[in-house]
Amino acid sequence: MSRPLIKLADIPTAAPEGVKEKHIKEETEDLVDRLGDLQQRLYADGKHSLLVVLQGMDGSGKDGAAHKVFDKCRITGLTYHAFKKPTEEEFAHDFLWRVHKVVPAKGMIGIFNRSHYEDILIQRVHGWIDEERVRRRMAAINAFEETLEFDNNTLVFKFYMHISHDEQEKQLKERMQEPDKYWKHNPGDWEERKLWDKYMDAYEYAINHSSIPWHICPVDDRWWRDYFIAKTLVERLEKLNLEMPELAGR
Amino acid sequence: MSRPLIKLADIPTAAPEGVKEKHIKEETEDLVDRLGDLQQRLYADGKHSLLVVLQGMDGSGKDGAAHKVFDKCRITGLTYHAFKKPTEEEFAHDFLWRVHKVVPAKGMIGIFNRSHYEDILIQRVHGWIDEERVRRRMAAINAFEETLEFDNNTLVFKFYMHISHDEQEKQLKERMQEPDKYWKHNPGDWEERKLWDKYMDAYEYAINHSSIPWHICPVDDRWWRDYFIAKTLVERLEKLNLEMPELAGR
Repeated sequence: MSRPLIKLADIPTAAPEGVKEKHIKEETEDLVDRLGDLQQRLYADGKHSLLVVLQGMDGSGKDGAAHKVFDKCRITGLTYHAFKKPTEEEFAHDFLWRVHKVVPAKGMIGIFNRSHYEDILIQRVHGWIDEERVRRRMAAINAFEETLEFDNNTLVFKFYMHISHDEQEKQLKERMQEPDKYWKHNPGDWEERKLWDKYMDAYEYAINHSSIPWHICPVDDRWWRDYFIAKTLVERLEKLNLEMPELAGR
Repeated sequence: MSRPLIKLADIPTAAPEGVKEKHIKEETEDLVDRLGDLQQRLYADGKHSLLVVLQGMDGSGKDGAAHKVFDKCRITGLTYHAFKKPTEEEFAHDFLWRVHKVVPAKGMIGIFNRSHYEDILIQRVHGWIDEERVRRRMAAINAFEETLEFDNNTLVFKFYMHISHDEQEKQLKERMQEPDKYWKHNPGDWEERKLWDKYMDAYEYAINHSSIPWHICPVDDRWWRDYFIAKTLVERLEKLNLEMPELAGR
């Protein structure tokens, strides 16, 4: 691949210097509205689909981004899947099986909270799969995503939710301190945090070996995260020039 | 690919000279029994799966082969899917979506009557897709089948049901003459028959561009067809040396 290699440590995790939170939040409101409008056109037009992969460390705000950015989208045209530890039935199939089943149909927006990338992230970091399998799975992922693109007009957007080591600590601690967030607390997250450097390496591998490029989304400032994702999606969807269809059979 | 190119016209559609039908039928009975036994081991062992694709022209005996060869297999470990014209929901996804959903889990035998290859056969012959899409779908098929193999230990067996032009005519006529077969008659089959040469070209392309090799099964003599498929599967499965598992927790 001829793209410059991405080194996550060189990319900021916070909002750019000088941008004004209040102004960005106003712009985000507008973008979220426009995304809702674009979704209706996408649905009515029925020729494309949109797959949004939110992938990142614990506490990187994947849920929150999904709530906020798609707030004005209608549930009739939206699917949301959070991929957890595979079930017994899922383990009895290839790693893409459970993912392929739930990709968005034409006209739909599909949001993935985690994704098929877990199979070369958590599984690699813990040494559950060998490097040959990582390589083959990466090739399979590329072929799979390309098939969605060329054979179903799926726009594949992958956001790496780029959080700093310090901000993760803060987020995980909040889950133990704020009663509203207790339900999110999982002691296992602290165990995974110990493997931070290995995770960064595994993410960099996935990002740099993907044929469909990733968007590196700084998430330490949640208001910037929402703006970044909404803007990225809206700008691309507006390029499709989707029109509401004419009345049929008139 | 370094395999010699297959030219279907050079390959016989009938049983080899000199083989005795009665003897072959006896051997087939034995093979079908052994396949039933092997299926139980495959199921109990739960580490591999078997995907059997039966692909061929109308009247080439795909149904019949499925009935006969898997007669001693238990339905608990067997799935069977006949792929028809895609539904509206299927058309709203990439061509592999409906196929991937129903691939066999570990321990299972999955039989496909027609398959994902239809998307570069009937669709190509009728000019519903362009050659660029054929090329890309072929690459996607190879990546898909390879993923089943390396990531789910799936043995992928693809049988091209090789029928002669004359034998097809005989088979289609029988459907109009024998009351027991009326239900199989479809006037559309005669229309497709007019495209015979185009179909042969499309099959040769698929067979010669597949990374997992095809088995060319002569089907004009149905007793040879059953023997050919059963023998191919049994010989491969026996090489797995599947044992019934020991009692766990003893």
